[in-house]
Amino acid sequence: MKSEIDALMASHNLDAILVIGPGQHNPPMVYLTGGAHLTHAELIKKRGEPPILFHAPMERDEAARTGLTTRMIEAALVEKMIKENNGDLTQAYGALYCQMFTDLGLTSGRLAIYGLSDVGRTYAILAELQKKLPGLEIVGEMGRSMLLTAMATKSRDEIERIRGIGQAATGVIGQVAEYLTSHAVRDEILMKPDGSPLRIGDVKRRIDTWLAEKGGENPEGTIFAIGYDAGVPHSTGNAQDPLRLGQTIVFDFFPREAGGGYFYDITRTWCLGYATDEALALYEDVLHVYQQSRQALQLGMPCRDYQALACELFEGRGHPTLRSYPGTTEGYVHSLGHGLGLHVHELPMFRLTASDEERLLPGVVITVEPGLYYPSRNLGVRLEDTIWARPDGVFETLAEFPLDLVLPMKSVNG
Amino acid sequence: MKSEIDALMASHNLDAILVIGPGQHNPPMVYLTGGAHLTHAELIKKRGEPPILFHAPMERDEAARTGLTTRMIEAALVEKMIKENNGDLTQAYGALYCQMFTDLGLTSGRLAIYGLSDVGRTYAILAELQKKLPGLEIVGEMGRSMLLTAMATKSRDEIERIRGIGQAATGVIGQVAEYLTSHAVRDEILMKPDGSPLRIGDVKRRIDTWLAEKGGENPEGTIFAIGYDAGVPHSTGNAQDPLRLGQTIVFDFFPREAGGGYFYDITRTWCLGYATDEALALYEDVLHVYQQSRQALQLGMPCRDYQALACELFEGRGHPTLRSYPGTTEGYVHSLGHGLGLHVHELPMFRLTASDEERLLPGVVITVEPGLYYPSRNLGVRLEDTIWARPDGVFETLAEFPLDLVLPMKSVNG
Repeated sequence: MKSEIDALMASHNLDAILVIGPGQHNPPMVYLTGGAHLTHAELIKKRGEPPILFHAPMERDEAARTGLTTRMIEAALVEKMIKENNGDLTQAYGALYCQMFTDLGLTSGRLAIYGLSDVGRTYAILAELQKKLPGLEIVGEMGRSMLLTAMATKSRDEIERIRGIGQAATGVIGQVAEYLTSHAVRDEILMKPDGSPLRIGDVKRRIDTWLAEKGGENPEGTIFAIGYDAGVPHSTGNAQDPLRLGQTIVFDFFPREAGGGYFYDITRTWCLGYATDEALALYEDVLHVYQQSRQALQLGMPCRDYQALACELFEGRGHPTLRSYPGTTEGYVHSLGHGLGLHVHELPMFRLTASDEERLLPGVVITVEPGLYYPSRNLGVRLEDTIWARPDGVFETLAEFPLDLVLPMKSVNG
Repeated sequence: MKSEIDALMASHNLDAILVIGPGQHNPPMVYLTGGAHLTHAELIKKRGEPPILFHAPMERDEAARTGLTTRMIEAALVEKMIKENNGDLTQAYGALYCQMFTDLGLTSGRLAIYGLSDVGRTYAILAELQKKLPGLEIVGEMGRSMLLTAMATKSRDEIERIRGIGQAATGVIGQVAEYLTSHAVRDEILMKPDGSPLRIGDVKRRIDTWLAEKGGENPEGTIFAIGYDAGVPHSTGNAQDPLRLGQTIVFDFFPREAGGGYFYDITRTWCLGYATDEALALYEDVLHVYQQSRQALQLGMPCRDYQALACELFEGRGHPTLRSYPGTTEGYVHSLGHGLGLHVHELPMFRLTASDEERLLPGVVITVEPGLYYPSRNLGVRLEDTIWARPDGVFETLAEFPLDLVLPMKSVNG
């Protein structure tokens, strides 16, 4: 949680942090500013002190709206730096950064860098800054960074935003179900009013339209995969595939608040019209593991324990898992879930190899998403919900939608 | 153009380039791979040799679909590096990069870095690589980089993609005009069927929905600003503002192909129902400068000349400009245009201070967007189109839409 940042900076041995890049579509900057309409900014925070947002003159109003302490980088200062460095932009911006840090009394100590931005420009400026301030230790944290650790536990306000985009997501899923089941059927294939088959590309276009109506965006695309593709967890589905009765459809939907805000993540597996015995049996195994894992969630437990539980349950039902057959592409081939927030995947992770620190702390938002994949049999099933670990110990699904496998068609014409 | 990269690498004195980050929403990677669905990848290209795409095992199919030479980074290799470096991820990835470069015989020379990615992670790995390969000069180009120079001139295929999103954009603008003028009016304010005023937030939601239907996304939002906000070029408009007859509305729309592809950029200024004499006079001045600048476009000319021309024309009509009153917030307060492609703003730029190299080379795609702003009078007017400098010397607007100021209302109820 944001309120823990000073304590986390101490435990990560950081004296200051620097966040670089645009104000939107940049999770660290969105987290610390609230998502301002800034083309480019620098945010510097010393441990124990409030952050300072450096901005361009044109974006004064947007910067002020964050409520943070702001400092304008005057155009005249930039021009002066460029002139003093004979037009060398890297040296000029290195000098500018050096002045920003010197003015804040930050010429030594450990400084961590965050942001989604131009890596070439940033490397060049930071390497120049490092030369000018050799006492400063510039740190790029990898793995469990200070900021990702803070972001893992959510405030009430963040929960309500995730719930809001979750409600948009389940609204769209309901519209898709209604849309699919309203189609006519010929030779087991869904047909459009114009007599051509309904294809996955048509469905995805509808998904994006309905999502936009509800204030969401879909930066990572949607997995809507049928048959063989449903059996390959990272396949997003083939736009040309027609929709056929009886086949498993994996619909994994992970939209974001428009403008680069919070994500939601939910998966349903559907069979249109009817399910084969084979599909139904797989579905029942996945549903069982979903329910058992869901019920076992408990504050403070290590996340890897749930991955071990899921492997045990699937193996008990005769399926290969990554534990029993490392590298398998059939059976249970991924991990049980992940944290979610301004990134679709963030801490904590449910891998078997996750560290002991990856635990169900109060405030984390996680997914639970067991699945089974048999591409050789054109079958895949996954069920996923986004769940909040409430401080009172209740694990709450943030947006509900029925888990049903079969979507009955409204009219079946032969 | 992509075919010029080797020559540009020579003129920029680069022996190799490294592109880092995801396969989508990352212009340098999209440019060189075509936009693959890759979570993270590294692309290395030596001068005079084809690029090599390094990818994770799970993303083999997506990497192969790019048609590039690919190399899988084996999970076992990553684990080995982590073990050898006692769990230090920065050192492990530094060693991994070092091996990639050593395998390619790249242990010296100048290496430029590109990509939109995690700046902390990238800085840490590159600083480690630099330690391991001191003979390699790691360059973060700023300003007119090699890659931005290549991207400035477009191939036929890129033109057709920009034209396609342009047609989506003008389609949406037509729908917005139809939507606005179909509303009832009470006391000069547009009213929804439920009796409440139509607000800018309602219009923006429609824009995103219609755009999604046409396969576009709107990562940067839309400027749809009325009255005072129309007079402030960087204001995106207030969602709560009602739509009022007679006021200038600046509608600046810059959508992108869904998934992080090419942009389009177009602006129209509208008055609903009627225009005041004051608004009409400003509009005519802007239209005059638009037409004169448009007609003056000529292959090979320096872009700054057009900014000078626009200033001269506006000053001749009695308006302050950035040239006559540096820092003015009234009159003509920005530059005449910019290049456009996988970035909404790219080379060439039309600033007065633009270098002599910023020219209308065959194949550039630019905007022409003169405007006048008088926030103190609640007035702003801007007209903008996206124009392709064809190799035959014709300057072609890629998607046409009428420039009209007044949108007559279909029914005016008192």
